Amino acid sequence: MQQTPDKPSEAPEAPFTPKFDATGLLTAIVVDGDSGAILMLAHMDKEALSKTRETGLAHFHSRSRGRLWMKGESSGNTLRVERILVDCDQDALVLECRPTGPACHTGAISCFYRELDGDVLRSVNT
Amino acid sequence: MQQTPDKPSEAPEAPFTPKFDATGLLTAIVVDGDSGAILMLAHMDKEALSKTRETGLAHFHSRSRGRLWMKGESSGNTLRVERILVDCDQDALVLECRPTGPACHTGAISCFYRELDGDVLRSVNT
Repeated sequence: MQQTPDKPSEAPEAPFTPKFDATGLLTAIVVDGDSGAILMLAHMDKEALSKTRETGLAHFHSRSRGRLWMKGESSGNTLRVERILVDCDQDALVLECRPTGPACHTGAISCFYRELDGDVLRSVNT
Repeated sequence: MQQTPDKPSEAPEAPFTPKFDATGLLTAIVVDGDSGAILMLAHMDKEALSKTRETGLAHFHSRSRGRLWMKGESSGNTLRVERILVDCDQDALVLECRPTGPACHTGAISCFYRELDGDVLRSVNT
């Protein structure tokens, strides 16, 4: 049963008013639009969100490098964004994408290529 | 093609050494272990991660309330964690869960119940 949302921004139809955190970021989960597999997680500031919507290619804000980056700018493995889902409090997005290659910088299809087994990570057969 | 990981912590088999950010948190994506649907996104500090592993029920750190919370502690809609996937740089997790009810506080099955259409959010038929 769908409860009545508490706030107007949680209503089934509402204006898009993304909530950036104290450091100016929101979280983006990248999934393969065909398989639904989770490929990676990254962060977006206002600029990255605008560039993504403007170009249709996923852009993020690198916390380590402190700058805008387009996924695939060096590897060529871009992400074409087909649909954006927004969560209840508008601080997290799901980007349904068509990837042109492996999403992970290690060459794996997904960054989530290992599972936790006790205190050790083991490869997942995907 | 799987490239050779750059760092030992990225190897197919590696010790679990979670990387908490400057505020002591990592990001957890909750998915339905059966359907693979993304249910919610939340944050974990060391305590939340320990409690989750100890009890098998998802615990998080609320940034707004500044405290540990067990998902479902008030609603009863707990999340039984069946598997934890870890990303390449060990700062994001996927929790494959069996939910006992809607994951979203609005009563929706998933917090991602809307898609972006221009500058408006519209309900997704799931």
